[in-house]
Amino acid sequence: MQRPNYPSGKDLLSADAVSRFDLEDIIARAQRHLRDEELDKAGQPLPEQPPAPRRRPKVIATLFDQRSTRTRLGFQAAAARLGHQSIDAYDTDRSRLGTSTGESIEDHIHTVELYSDLLVVRSHMEDMPYRVSRLSYLPVINAGNGADEHPSQALVDIFAIREMRGEIEKLSIALSSDTRARFAVSFVKMLRLSPPKRFTLCCLRDVPINPVMREAMTVLADLGTKVSLVHDIRQTLDHDVLNIQMQDMSKFAHASLGNEAIDKEKESEPFTLTARKILDAKSDTLILNPLPRFSELDTSCDSLPNAGYFRQVQLSVPMRMAILERMLAGVPWTGQAGAFRSS
Amino acid sequence: MQRPNYPSGKDLLSADAVSRFDLEDIIARAQRHLRDEELDKAGQPLPEQPPAPRRRPKVIATLFDQRSTRTRLGFQAAAARLGHQSIDAYDTDRSRLGTSTGESIEDHIHTVELYSDLLVVRSHMEDMPYRVSRLSYLPVINAGNGADEHPSQALVDIFAIREMRGEIEKLSIALSSDTRARFAVSFVKMLRLSPPKRFTLCCLRDVPINPVMREAMTVLADLGTKVSLVHDIRQTLDHDVLNIQMQDMSKFAHASLGNEAIDKEKESEPFTLTARKILDAKSDTLILNPLPRFSELDTSCDSLPNAGYFRQVQLSVPMRMAILERMLAGVPWTGQAGAFRSS
Amino acid sequence: MQRPNYPSGKDLLSADAVSRFDLEDIIARAQRHLRDEELDKAGQPLPEQPPAPRRRPKVIATLFDQRSTRTRLGFQAAAARLGHQSIDAYDTDRSRLGTSTGESIEDHIHTVELYSDLLVVRSHMEDMPYRVSRLSYLPVINAGNGADEHPSQALVDIFAIREMRGEIEKLSIALSSDTRARFAVSFVKMLRLSPPKRFTLCCLRDVPINPVMREAMTVLADLGTKVSLVHDIRQTLDHDVLNIQMQDMSKFAHASLGNEAIDKEKESEPFTLTARKILDAKSDTLILNPLPRFSELDTSCDSLPNAGYFRQVQLSVPMRMAILERMLAGVPWTGQAGAFRSS
Repeated sequence: MQRPNYPSGKDLLSADAVSRFDLEDIIARAQRHLRDEELDKAGQPLPEQPPAPRRRPKVIATLFDQRSTRTRLGFQAAAARLGHQSIDAYDTDRSRLGTSTGESIEDHIHTVELYSDLLVVRSHMEDMPYRVSRLSYLPVINAGNGADEHPSQALVDIFAIREMRGEIEKLSIALSSDTRARFAVSFVKMLRLSPPKRFTLCCLRDVPINPVMREAMTVLADLGTKVSLVHDIRQTLDHDVLNIQMQDMSKFAHASLGNEAIDKEKESEPFTLTARKILDAKSDTLILNPLPRFSELDTSCDSLPNAGYFRQVQLSVPMRMAILERMLAGVPWTGQAGAFRSS
Repeated sequence: MQRPNYPSGKDLLSADAVSRFDLEDIIARAQRHLRDEELDKAGQPLPEQPPAPRRRPKVIATLFDQRSTRTRLGFQAAAARLGHQSIDAYDTDRSRLGTSTGESIEDHIHTVELYSDLLVVRSHMEDMPYRVSRLSYLPVINAGNGADEHPSQALVDIFAIREMRGEIEKLSIALSSDTRARFAVSFVKMLRLSPPKRFTLCCLRDVPINPVMREAMTVLADLGTKVSLVHDIRQTLDHDVLNIQMQDMSKFAHASLGNEAIDKEKESEPFTLTARKILDAKSDTLILNPLPRFSELDTSCDSLPNAGYFRQVQLSVPMRMAILERMLAGVPWTGQAGAFRSS
Repeated sequence: MQRPNYPSGKDLLSADAVSRFDLEDIIARAQRHLRDEELDKAGQPLPEQPPAPRRRPKVIATLFDQRSTRTRLGFQAAAARLGHQSIDAYDTDRSRLGTSTGESIEDHIHTVELYSDLLVVRSHMEDMPYRVSRLSYLPVINAGNGADEHPSQALVDIFAIREMRGEIEKLSIALSSDTRARFAVSFVKMLRLSPPKRFTLCCLRDVPINPVMREAMTVLADLGTKVSLVHDIRQTLDHDVLNIQMQDMSKFAHASLGNEAIDKEKESEPFTLTARKILDAKSDTLILNPLPRFSELDTSCDSLPNAGYFRQVQLSVPMRMAILERMLAGVPWTGQAGAFRSS
């Protein structure tokens, strides 16, 4: 079969792919879907659309070799909201894809691309979305690849800040996270498109900062953002926004296995956010979290007006709709195409 | 996120939620969907609908922590027949929801409710649908909770009787079942909305009757129904309707593991229905069964005109469509709101 | 419930069910869906359809007791492309259907048929699609039953040859396969509807030919096809078309477990096709493969113009759409109804 030339900019593999122009376009699309959602929830009819020519129903294929509830359901729900259907083209618990007794990844991708219109890939292997991107002429969304990136989550985060706190250029933004977390890398990279006044990274003192994160922060500094580093969550509570996740997955995963002693020490944990800390600081910082949360974000925060993370989930639906709609329409990403750096 | 006040009557958790008015409305809706089905199967076009304003495609989320084929597929099929899509928001074999290493149920529900329009919950935990109902502003259907209730099945049963035997007030109705079975409790509770002339419970002699069942029967008696108790299925075969399921799950589950001796004793089993018993009694009793069946209902009955259980499955589709349609339209249930009684 | 008489010709269980008339009709339908796909991929609107009366959304139920990626996803995608939805009515990893503790197959089929409009069945049991066909009034597609048949794959193969090489009556066609393979049996049976000029079977010398295959070849010979037998893939490379799969599943499954020595011997393997063999023979033979492939088809072939197997996958979508569309419309197959021969 004659393969078409793969158009440049077809994929969303990294925050690097998104230009300032793309960001404005995708946010305008997401706002339109959000308005539709609000009208619909209020029982109002949606704005009528001009008569459109008949098109084929679209099929979204998800290929996830890591378990996922939120991201998979989120893309399925966004596809359904657009009137499209999803197929689950990879099942981590049953598939033997890429093993010695199973089908090769190449053959599988060349098959699935002929059944569908867009591929959403999550993998523990960092180069997988890049491999799929090179193999297929279809648009590919990287929905998280190992310790590399998670650009659609970063678009959700940026949209959430814009909707809840306005223009990012006027804001001070903090991030408390393991600097190797993929959502965190994509988030800081995406901030370059609208550099905040201040950016503060809150992280463990004795763990080296991920070089990619360091580079993304240097880019922000070069664009005029005042960048700083802190090691206690309390020092972020004067910011407009705090995007928070666990600092050290291994440690906190262990803690979540039921060590109640750790829970009791929460107040003294420098990276755990509690309602008490927010109230003590008289903070009106907007709190975001990619969810699921671990011990970094105490449920005592949920009833405070600061808690933005469920509104963030709600905003993820129109943003994922916007991403799917734009890519299905063949609109290219005009940032850097990029390639996965294996070193 | 500012949570809306949860409207009263949004959920179908118990047969108590359904008023007489609601029942008439839901049956009228189910009849309309049934007519559409009959036209469609006959290759006829459906009645044209007046032009409607554009609405968002709807998403139904199923959360089942008990395995289910029939109920899950039934709601999926009903959603598809309405033009909606379903997402499987809980997978009992893979999810770690609510465990020490997984996400909390609260966070999961707060996420799923933002992806969807209605939640269908099945759980081995009796309080789960009530917890989900309190957590979410979305309408919630209890599709079976432990040994408590299964109200959508009861609506299917009532609809089946109405379609096959007419007005329930004029009928004699028997129930042969373990009195702790959730479908049985919901069925007898639902009968209060159109009390039959006679109601007979057929059950084991030496097992105490579930107090909730006893109370529901007292309600019927107070409404003028002649209520009685028997211990042999033959004594129900002069009734208009017999709703039958196994008497003792533990015993019959054991029997189904291949003890052929039990099969041979069927004729002497007081709670097993066979074609022979029906023919001997010259009975025209309509037989219902929530399916799957065990040894209580011999396949020899399938070819008799009495067998109503597959027609009952067929009627479950328009009834589930009616339930989804009504709840998605925000029409409240006007019976008692109720709450799960933990004692 | 009164069961309707099951119409003759409702099912696609064997290539025998397809008449020459049916074949022309299904290919015309597939070509129309293919044109729509090409327009859609080019960003063009599809031809407008005349206003149609309202119909119910259709539901396709898949019942697969063998694992499948390609066939299941292919039917799901085809259903979605037609605007229909699928339900997974059997899950091989979780269902206890037909076991002593689970529901009977009869009851399950009688339930699923009431939820859906068409059943797609794959089974390791050869009589299963025939049992389902007798049990249900719905149209049934045999998507592979043990070592018997796989007629929808044969329709895909015939369509692929027609699209890529034209009228089959003018062609020489070779098949290299285990003669017990179900796709191979259905393919040769289907060829009787447009007998090629030449037909060559390439198979192991010392393994007896499957009697059903031998019979199908005799039918071809009686229709005027020049039929011959060879034992080296090189002897098929002067044909117009070669449909190739592994010769001996047990042997090649073992080889695929990582015995690299076997890979190095490929050139000398008489049943393994490599680019070198094609180039040496200056062959323009069109290569088809039902996929997944094993060691019979080296990836070195993929970049040659001969490689037709991914185009074949692409053509499988409009063909599966045509099959579903035709059967959902109630158009009967007018070939032999047939029944599974247990001997």
